[in-house]
Amino acid sequence: MLNKNIETFLDCDKDYETAEIIMFGAGFDSTTSFRPGARFAPNAIRSESYGIETYSPYQNKSLEDKKVMDSGDIELCIGDTTAVLEQIQNRAEGILSDNKIPLMIGGEHLVTLGMFRAVCKKYPDVHIIHFDAHADLREDYLGVKNSHACVLRRCWELVGDGRIHQFGIRSGDKSEFLFAESHTDMHPFGLGDVSDTVKKLAGKPVYFTLDLDVLDPSVFPGTGTPEPEGVSFAELRKAATEVCSNLNIVACDVNELSPHYDHSGISTAAACKIIREIILAID
Amino acid sequence: MLNKNIETFLDCDKDYETAEIIMFGAGFDSTTSFRPGARFAPNAIRSESYGIETYSPYQNKSLEDKKVMDSGDIELCIGDTTAVLEQIQNRAEGILSDNKIPLMIGGEHLVTLGMFRAVCKKYPDVHIIHFDAHADLREDYLGVKNSHACVLRRCWELVGDGRIHQFGIRSGDKSEFLFAESHTDMHPFGLGDVSDTVKKLAGKPVYFTLDLDVLDPSVFPGTGTPEPEGVSFAELRKAATEVCSNLNIVACDVNELSPHYDHSGISTAAACKIIREIILAID
Amino acid sequence: MLNKNIETFLDCDKDYETAEIIMFGAGFDSTTSFRPGARFAPNAIRSESYGIETYSPYQNKSLEDKKVMDSGDIELCIGDTTAVLEQIQNRAEGILSDNKIPLMIGGEHLVTLGMFRAVCKKYPDVHIIHFDAHADLREDYLGVKNSHACVLRRCWELVGDGRIHQFGIRSGDKSEFLFAESHTDMHPFGLGDVSDTVKKLAGKPVYFTLDLDVLDPSVFPGTGTPEPEGVSFAELRKAATEVCSNLNIVACDVNELSPHYDHSGISTAAACKIIREIILAID
Amino acid sequence: MLNKNIETFLDCDKDYETAEIIMFGAGFDSTTSFRPGARFAPNAIRSESYGIETYSPYQNKSLEDKKVMDSGDIELCIGDTTAVLEQIQNRAEGILSDNKIPLMIGGEHLVTLGMFRAVCKKYPDVHIIHFDAHADLREDYLGVKNSHACVLRRCWELVGDGRIHQFGIRSGDKSEFLFAESHTDMHPFGLGDVSDTVKKLAGKPVYFTLDLDVLDPSVFPGTGTPEPEGVSFAELRKAATEVCSNLNIVACDVNELSPHYDHSGISTAAACKIIREIILAID
Amino acid sequence: MLNKNIETFLDCDKDYETAEIIMFGAGFDSTTSFRPGARFAPNAIRSESYGIETYSPYQNKSLEDKKVMDSGDIELCIGDTTAVLEQIQNRAEGILSDNKIPLMIGGEHLVTLGMFRAVCKKYPDVHIIHFDAHADLREDYLGVKNSHACVLRRCWELVGDGRIHQFGIRSGDKSEFLFAESHTDMHPFGLGDVSDTVKKLAGKPVYFTLDLDVLDPSVFPGTGTPEPEGVSFAELRKAATEVCSNLNIVACDVNELSPHYDHSGISTAAACKIIREIILAID
Amino acid sequence: MLNKNIETFLDCDKDYETAEIIMFGAGFDSTTSFRPGARFAPNAIRSESYGIETYSPYQNKSLEDKKVMDSGDIELCIGDTTAVLEQIQNRAEGILSDNKIPLMIGGEHLVTLGMFRAVCKKYPDVHIIHFDAHADLREDYLGVKNSHACVLRRCWELVGDGRIHQFGIRSGDKSEFLFAESHTDMHPFGLGDVSDTVKKLAGKPVYFTLDLDVLDPSVFPGTGTPEPEGVSFAELRKAATEVCSNLNIVACDVNELSPHYDHSGISTAAACKIIREIILAID
Repeated sequence: MLNKNIETFLDCDKDYETAEIIMFGAGFDSTTSFRPGARFAPNAIRSESYGIETYSPYQNKSLEDKKVMDSGDIELCIGDTTAVLEQIQNRAEGILSDNKIPLMIGGEHLVTLGMFRAVCKKYPDVHIIHFDAHADLREDYLGVKNSHACVLRRCWELVGDGRIHQFGIRSGDKSEFLFAESHTDMHPFGLGDVSDTVKKLAGKPVYFTLDLDVLDPSVFPGTGTPEPEGVSFAELRKAATEVCSNLNIVACDVNELSPHYDHSGISTAAACKIIREIILAID
Repeated sequence: MLNKNIETFLDCDKDYETAEIIMFGAGFDSTTSFRPGARFAPNAIRSESYGIETYSPYQNKSLEDKKVMDSGDIELCIGDTTAVLEQIQNRAEGILSDNKIPLMIGGEHLVTLGMFRAVCKKYPDVHIIHFDAHADLREDYLGVKNSHACVLRRCWELVGDGRIHQFGIRSGDKSEFLFAESHTDMHPFGLGDVSDTVKKLAGKPVYFTLDLDVLDPSVFPGTGTPEPEGVSFAELRKAATEVCSNLNIVACDVNELSPHYDHSGISTAAACKIIREIILAID
Repeated sequence: MLNKNIETFLDCDKDYETAEIIMFGAGFDSTTSFRPGARFAPNAIRSESYGIETYSPYQNKSLEDKKVMDSGDIELCIGDTTAVLEQIQNRAEGILSDNKIPLMIGGEHLVTLGMFRAVCKKYPDVHIIHFDAHADLREDYLGVKNSHACVLRRCWELVGDGRIHQFGIRSGDKSEFLFAESHTDMHPFGLGDVSDTVKKLAGKPVYFTLDLDVLDPSVFPGTGTPEPEGVSFAELRKAATEVCSNLNIVACDVNELSPHYDHSGISTAAACKIIREIILAID
Repeated sequence: MLNKNIETFLDCDKDYETAEIIMFGAGFDSTTSFRPGARFAPNAIRSESYGIETYSPYQNKSLEDKKVMDSGDIELCIGDTTAVLEQIQNRAEGILSDNKIPLMIGGEHLVTLGMFRAVCKKYPDVHIIHFDAHADLREDYLGVKNSHACVLRRCWELVGDGRIHQFGIRSGDKSEFLFAESHTDMHPFGLGDVSDTVKKLAGKPVYFTLDLDVLDPSVFPGTGTPEPEGVSFAELRKAATEVCSNLNIVACDVNELSPHYDHSGISTAAACKIIREIILAID
Repeated sequence: MLNKNIETFLDCDKDYETAEIIMFGAGFDSTTSFRPGARFAPNAIRSESYGIETYSPYQNKSLEDKKVMDSGDIELCIGDTTAVLEQIQNRAEGILSDNKIPLMIGGEHLVTLGMFRAVCKKYPDVHIIHFDAHADLREDYLGVKNSHACVLRRCWELVGDGRIHQFGIRSGDKSEFLFAESHTDMHPFGLGDVSDTVKKLAGKPVYFTLDLDVLDPSVFPGTGTPEPEGVSFAELRKAATEVCSNLNIVACDVNELSPHYDHSGISTAAACKIIREIILAID
Repeated sequence: MLNKNIETFLDCDKDYETAEIIMFGAGFDSTTSFRPGARFAPNAIRSESYGIETYSPYQNKSLEDKKVMDSGDIELCIGDTTAVLEQIQNRAEGILSDNKIPLMIGGEHLVTLGMFRAVCKKYPDVHIIHFDAHADLREDYLGVKNSHACVLRRCWELVGDGRIHQFGIRSGDKSEFLFAESHTDMHPFGLGDVSDTVKKLAGKPVYFTLDLDVLDPSVFPGTGTPEPEGVSFAELRKAATEVCSNLNIVACDVNELSPHYDHSGISTAAACKIIREIILAID
């Protein structure tokens, strides 16, 4: 019998009916303001996941024991932002309606908007936990509203004040930090305050959106807009594990890996490992 | 007295009133289907032009003697294709209304559509000479009509049959080659037939659009969609010189350099040199 | 319904029963004497095939119309050369016994030995057409007999004099060229003599083994042992098409792409395009 | 009206009369002993500054509010070290005589000598605060006295003992460390002692020279001589901010970025961010 | 008199009779499961050692004062794992029989097995101190027993329980961690417990094997299998210095640098610096 | 017995007395106007020569049979151009006084001046055959006379009109081409006219200086100033072989490889192969 040529993220090869978590890739990067290429992230993450183990010594768990399906990438209408957001929303709605957890691999951060539209329809009381170097709270970017630089602002328009919890933010223009003072729960510079927020959100539905550039550029150089003085991998792993193992995660995304700036492969390795830890942590 | 920090392409530093050719950059790449990054081309071309001379021993002419202004880049609304095309069209209309020749540096090939809209308003009888590896004649690409893969099809809609002269084409789907049979003047694979076309178009207004991936990938690796078996630099230089020195060029663009795939810098050097030769050839 | 995450080479997604050509990857590179990494070639070729079209304007044929299955990669016992050669032989024997044509993507050139063992069992009168920069005729390399530098010598031991037809060879030690004078049909430096050989081998079973480093390093830098002064892509395409469309190809392999030295991607693009042309040419 | 093609560091586009800080580039690297290329730093810093914000959440200040002119690069006599040092000295003297603060972007570290000659003429009691991985205190390097490996020794010859305060030094030959014991105020390995020095130098004129290789190579790989076990970006930012906001900075330079070894761009991003913080900190 | 073209690691150019430590390279990487290329490490380490000093300010010692010979590389039978291990064993036995300390530069980690066979013949009571990201305790890897993923398991077979002390381990499959519980002295995740082990092993013969991927990938990207969340350079330097200056080191190896993934050179610089510190620490 | 750690170019390991050709490296690049790094060429050429054979099928000769010593690199006073030129001149004079042929590996092209000073002292009637993309005939470059852009002008000052034969030149400013009309024997653009010159110079002493950027950048990207539309490797090999096998070569240099821009290694491979062919051709 011949091998099947099915490449999935590590052992995430369960069938759809069995799976409780459904991964999919959304390789969109058309609004990237600086260095594009996040479109290649889902493919790179699958290929390079071969370099890490399915077992986590941190959690003493293994992906073989999890019910996860890597369902491949959406074939996106590159160049038409509106259509792309609809495609993502449709995919997420399908998964949510089957009472499964969508785990989206971007792509630039704007992809979050598509999935969050689906999530907040099903869970109107959802909170967002947002790890990022950038505030992403601009009203518009060079006149464009559906830009990766505005994505949390667009999400805020859907749910309003007090529902977005931002960590690790260390870059933005002054207006974004002012906006955050009134409208979001921003904890700039680090992830140290995550535990308090986790306690407060116990039991509530939570969307976890992870912009990997929250990591220090030394750990994660392969991204569109590297911002010095980020968090270490250990800090991210611990905070992400705490969020995902203690809260009711209803959807999750991991974005902004840009593999063509990752010449040494360490950024992709970091993406693979944090995705593994997130999956293992989600109950 | 202090230096001015004005970086221009080689010696293209005349003022607007004096200049007969106005260069500008249009660093757009949002519809790129494969590898993005053409947005960085105008900046790279300016920086790296330092490595070549202003004098051409081929034409025995020098850029110091030409009236050219490098007017910088348009700050584009990245992420909103419709708006970007309008911005480009506006810039080109301004230059054309002053009876100057716009020379646009892309960006991906879709930028041509913005400028061609301006050109065919002023010159309804304009012909296009198109050097490219790809036919760019699709009706749509994944449902998107304003895509770099469709740009000549969109131009054809503006001027109709017999006005687009394509050279060097060696890639496309079958439908594009069939479309070309009826609607464009396609000379696949090489640039050998350019002389005949130049004779036929004598005196007519001509828009010259140069997709640099017409070059062989060995000569021009730094592009979004490298297609093996292209033309040599000498073939391109001779054909472009013939077109520009013998015809009434009313507008011109050079596109699809993607500098982040040009690790050795040879693609950018090739772009700089062909732009120099084009400027020197335009009378 | 969800997308399937099946990545294949272009449209080579027929099922096994239907398919007449069965592709598979053999990502082995343990005997590489200089720069390893050919193990990554099958995966890179699948991923990057997205950048080329399924249609060939050279042959006016399209992969959609061919019965080809990309059956994925053999999971090889990296580090145990003997076992790896057996794994490859077994795979090839399975395909041959179903009267299909195996098309193997290496990997380093030694993989040919595994498949050729299977082929010459079924076709004892098989001839080899071998395109390469290197003669690969050493008796041993640093004492190792099963080395990529010896692979054609090992094949010769299976079939004897006059059955190996070598083209493009421009590197070897003196003993290899002397060996070739007596034992193989070597046409050094170029592919110009292919037509004569094609005529002579009409009707006979032919194994076509293509070491991509026959190409000039400017066209194909991403390989373990780049050897200057190779053939152009056009020369390779024409010769390979002539071989595959006129002869009775019973098996074929394409090897020695080393993607991690292919920073610009042009080598992988060349590999994809020549594989497309080979498939389209095989009747 | 057309855009002007003036590229400056972020918003440092005030005119000369208004500006209080005058930036200029000195892209010299001819004495580099290991990996050259610092010549490209000023250009890279300008281009890549687009990726960071003008606003600092650390200092709650913005570059728009600062009076800074980026006056471009000196066109240096590459290959003639003596002449280059004079060119730099002349530029610095002009700025200092207008009672403005020169901020020089190297180039290799030897450029400091040119500017320091100008500075210690105007401020004979000036102190140097020197952040670096290397002591730069050799009497000569392979017989050459005006070498980047000797630059602080040359500065010491101008001002004598007790005026050079060195931090972060973790590399040198034994003689340099012995020299430092008697002649400079060296604090090896880290930046922890900066606060004490800042207190002692209150009110005195200070030249701040920052060799960016004081950073750990993981944070700043793009430099001529990467030296493991450096300081983190946070440590550098805090120390540099303390120096520049509390002391009377009369001149400053930032050097030793070598962009062609910065494939991922993170070193250039770090350079841009620390320059922003330095400008914002200088009162 | 002409220069000799002898390239050695820094000043390790003593003759064999004088030398107490004998360096040699073993550039083998055929069993590497993910990214090969460690074969190039010895050469890269020699070439790039030019960028660091011979003097250590940490230990206040200099290589000029040490009796070390860099004896060059073994010319290995690439492709024949069994033969390669014998070649390494023979080289080590020669050095050990002259009562000198062999210091081997890999290559992948399997090279340790060759040298350890020699070492445990001479020192049957030898202990291993093992710094690594990976446990390397698999029974086999894809059916291959002599794989870099199994090397410590093979060493365990030679000496039995309680003799292997593992530090920094953060990756493996579940069976390896279970095996370690019963058979090795594993201290996962960091190097913090080294001091205790150093105390316990006082006076005993110790083989120190350093897989450089114990370092964080940000510090050491150039390796076959980068594993996020490793130790810092300072942590490694302190632990390695403690091991080598306090224990009876009878043999040592440093492995798994893969220079072709080290585009910026920082991994090679880290390798050079830690080798310098190890040599200086060995009494 | 232990291996010696002597790395030489291929088999060029004869002792000085025996050798008829003495290779040495001169890794100088301080006057490079664009991209430095030629200093790394001698080392790279030695390391990478491992990838080519000692036997040439073009000439049917082998390096084992030639009396050549690779004598290593001069340790140059980087940063002091005058001293460097003297060091090179001294080395060449020593070799010439022993009636051997010096073969210098640059470095940038200015190194030729040092060696040519020695050569024209011994051979006042020497001619220069110069292959290059650039004329190198400027009177000065930014005020610097000893610049790589002026090196043939400086040589001309030593020997006067009619003694410099230039081939392949395709770049320069207008004044250089005018200078060449009166003072040198320039054959621009290609190497086609070499045969005529070879006939004219029969029996005369000839210095052959090969700037490798005469090659097309596709073949030789790794150089400081890549200039499109160069010659192919075959053209260079044939012309260089004709020059070296038919003329009385008294000294030779090969320069302007800049390995850090040669990511794929093909430029270094080309340099190695042409050096092999030159050595084999020199009688």
